[in-house]
Amino acid sequence: MAYRYSPAIEKLVQALAKLPGIGRKTAQRLAFFILDHRDVGMTLSDAIREACDSVHLCSSCCNLTEEDPCYICRSSARDTTKICVVENPSDIAAMERIHDYNGLYHVLHGVISPMHDIGPENIKLRELLQRLQAHSEVEEIILATNPTVEGEATALYIARLLKPSGIRTTRIAHGIPMGASLEYADEVTLARAFENRREL
Amino acid sequence: MAYRYSPAIEKLVQALAKLPGIGRKTAQRLAFFILDHRDVGMTLSDAIREACDSVHLCSSCCNLTEEDPCYICRSSARDTTKICVVENPSDIAAMERIHDYNGLYHVLHGVISPMHDIGPENIKLRELLQRLQAHSEVEEIILATNPTVEGEATALYIARLLKPSGIRTTRIAHGIPMGASLEYADEVTLARAFENRREL
Repeated sequence: MAYRYSPAIEKLVQALAKLPGIGRKTAQRLAFFILDHRDVGMTLSDAIREACDSVHLCSSCCNLTEEDPCYICRSSARDTTKICVVENPSDIAAMERIHDYNGLYHVLHGVISPMHDIGPENIKLRELLQRLQAHSEVEEIILATNPTVEGEATALYIARLLKPSGIRTTRIAHGIPMGASLEYADEVTLARAFENRREL
Repeated sequence: MAYRYSPAIEKLVQALAKLPGIGRKTAQRLAFFILDHRDVGMTLSDAIREACDSVHLCSSCCNLTEEDPCYICRSSARDTTKICVVENPSDIAAMERIHDYNGLYHVLHGVISPMHDIGPENIKLRELLQRLQAHSEVEEIILATNPTVEGEATALYIARLLKPSGIRTTRIAHGIPMGASLEYADEVTLARAFENRREL
């Protein structure tokens, strides 16, 4: 007979192993840690419950938030003529770290991917269009989807969709990362950097 | 102003980052995964709560269990004349995987470590002695603490403590792991393997 943990421990190990990047061994280690530090465990249990209960999508930008609209959409200090379109809520944190962009966001919650059966209707694209109709002050849409095949295709799709509206649509630049050396850059990045060269 | 997640997300990220081996970045990734897969999150929250509420120490062997005594102490198929002493509950799973040992266990929940201010009174040693007094059928104590300085010292300490009782006290063997090559074995392991050589 194989050794089995008691049912509650086994259930905890299996629940932890469902998290991304956490295998059975790590899940076991985390489970025993939680049973050794029950205050940490209970705080985590409550935090998960609270987040799952109270966090929902901002009705304006589809970012994750507890208040509606979210604090960026609500802020009077933001430039409401610009909307930066990103794939995921976590991308907003990355954009905000540059402390340079002061416009609004729109979170697609995914990208168009026929391979995974994700069409334009499965991402928050309708919400973006409705938002543009309701807020005529928007002058620029910055497409900041990731430079993957799907991210590029989604950016192109949105750009074409917005063409008739006359709103300026831009794409964030791709090229050699700062501090990197040409020698180690991949061909696609290098080609893109060359193609998008500009006058100095 | 630095970007801040909404309070409930921030609380979830901080609670996840308290787990061992999980840094801020991983905690963020896990938090967004949980908010994307709320069923997984709620199952985990409930599993943590249930485990923290229902799992306690077996009154006999100090293993983690929901029922008392635990299922190994309760089993009529186990050899009650042998007790294998281990550091942590997770060590029992490792021992049980060899399918060879059929005795009982005792979990110390730590090792003696003056460096960390852990003395004999801080581990489940009193419980072991009380158990030996109550169960006179015990004939062998197998010390299976880890081969670290603290583990070795703890094993020696227990062996000396049990000497007057006349109970046979053994230590698991240390040497070259099966399948490993001598070339890559560390000196201490090699010296131990040499010292503990036996007739064939």
